[in-house]
Amino acid sequence: MADASSDELREIFKAAPFIASLGVELESVAGGECRTVLRVRREHRQQTGVVHAGVIATLADHTAGGAAWSALDGSAQPLTVEFKINLLRAAAGDHLACRARVLKAGRSLVVAESEVYARADGSDETLVAKAIVTLAVVAGGKP
Amino acid sequence: MADASSDELREIFKAAPFIASLGVELESVAGGECRTVLRVRREHRQQTGVVHAGVIATLADHTAGGAAWSALDGSAQPLTVEFKINLLRAAAGDHLACRARVLKAGRSLVVAESEVYARADGSDETLVAKAIVTLAVVAGGKP
Amino acid sequence: MADASSDELREIFKAAPFIASLGVELESVAGGECRTVLRVRREHRQQTGVVHAGVIATLADHTAGGAAWSALDGSAQPLTVEFKINLLRAAAGDHLACRARVLKAGRSLVVAESEVYARADGSDETLVAKAIVTLAVVAGGKP
Amino acid sequence: MADASSDELREIFKAAPFIASLGVELESVAGGECRTVLRVRREHRQQTGVVHAGVIATLADHTAGGAAWSALDGSAQPLTVEFKINLLRAAAGDHLACRARVLKAGRSLVVAESEVYARADGSDETLVAKAIVTLAVVAGGKP
Repeated sequence: MADASSDELREIFKAAPFIASLGVELESVAGGECRTVLRVRREHRQQTGVVHAGVIATLADHTAGGAAWSALDGSAQPLTVEFKINLLRAAAGDHLACRARVLKAGRSLVVAESEVYARADGSDETLVAKAIVTLAVVAGGKP
Repeated sequence: MADASSDELREIFKAAPFIASLGVELESVAGGECRTVLRVRREHRQQTGVVHAGVIATLADHTAGGAAWSALDGSAQPLTVEFKINLLRAAAGDHLACRARVLKAGRSLVVAESEVYARADGSDETLVAKAIVTLAVVAGGKP
Repeated sequence: MADASSDELREIFKAAPFIASLGVELESVAGGECRTVLRVRREHRQQTGVVHAGVIATLADHTAGGAAWSALDGSAQPLTVEFKINLLRAAAGDHLACRARVLKAGRSLVVAESEVYARADGSDETLVAKAIVTLAVVAGGKP
Repeated sequence: MADASSDELREIFKAAPFIASLGVELESVAGGECRTVLRVRREHRQQTGVVHAGVIATLADHTAGGAAWSALDGSAQPLTVEFKINLLRAAAGDHLACRARVLKAGRSLVVAESEVYARADGSDETLVAKAIVTLAVVAGGKP
């Protein structure tokens, strides 16, 4: 069940040009939780070398969308209404990992939170951002 | 003065790999206001064809950064602390335009708001997103 | 029409115990815009004498609700889903005024923004807070 | 140490007129975490009987302030810059409990998150709201 979901969402991620071009990869998704990873490339960065807030926000938003998607029944898709993100620390590592979980799955709205971690090779993870995302439940199958 | 500022910020935009790779272009910046445009490409889109929320959020955040930058005195740079964005309508056009203005320029924090408009050729602009961005004032010259 | 709306919303404000106990007064409401005022009392303040963020947030949220209500057709009511507020300056005056306007009125969601101004007797208004509020459209008449 | 902190913050809560008038009580505070409770009274409610979003927001903001305060060294105080709150479920019980914890304690900014739970007598707690709060670190001792 989880594997089938993962495969289906992986296809959805690949079908989204912006997500595919950034290189966001699905790690796992099930029961209102979703994990993604992003290998940081030069074009993800600010002029100062840290990862751009827009990349981190995209990762947080899209992973929340994955978590929300897994809380729906397959005949509907989530669409971001709004989100808020705090950039807590500079994201300086080579990898970003995002973990999102649903806080509330309603009939018409889903709310999820996302945490983004940076990881340099050989070191511990650091929490670099936290977001809360509100998504609308939109009729229609595969987004 | 405004022209010199525009030229300087244009160089900063070009030096930011993520912004340059997206294709965000500075239109004008002066006195706490900044305008940018983005010609939408296929890789900016969701699988449904609309522009990805992450692209719109990046545009809103970065343009707010430009507005904040113009309200500082040149010996400091703005760094996004957090932002919140509402995606109001699907962004379906070929161009996005963003206008940001500073709501409060303090010694340590600047708050700006950004509006993102979509424009299809031959039609009027539509407001597609609104954001409020909080930025820290960081010592040090050109970001 | 606007007068009838104002009268009806004024009754709704009076029927909301928290709003009535704070002393929030409706000034005007029509066509997706709403204005309210609050005479600041001692119990609205922080220990430092400035108005508490919670009072300002309540004013911003409730006035956005009034603006959203005026954009609906009378057979539905708005219910706050989430809001974000920036406290821009200390609110030190005797009066607060809030102006809200609808950014998007959809079938299931309304988004409004609120600006809160402080005014000391004999001086100009100062913008002290700005909020963006997302509201759900809930079936059923008078809230 | 924790007890001394609790006693000191309890005095600060009592000295804040709005917090005292609402009836917010400190339960515990230490090491970047703070817990508060509020016995719901009639004047906290909406006309529909549920607790007003402004009350919940005040509780979330003020408890985040307590958590931030406990992460500072006593010669500075936290001041809310902005917050965002999602109202997840109607708060219908007789008690609200709020738990806040610091996500990042920097030299000039602290970020905390707050969860608000509703509890009717004899039943389990329900998560009714989640907030992320950004606070500035302001020089000066007791707020």
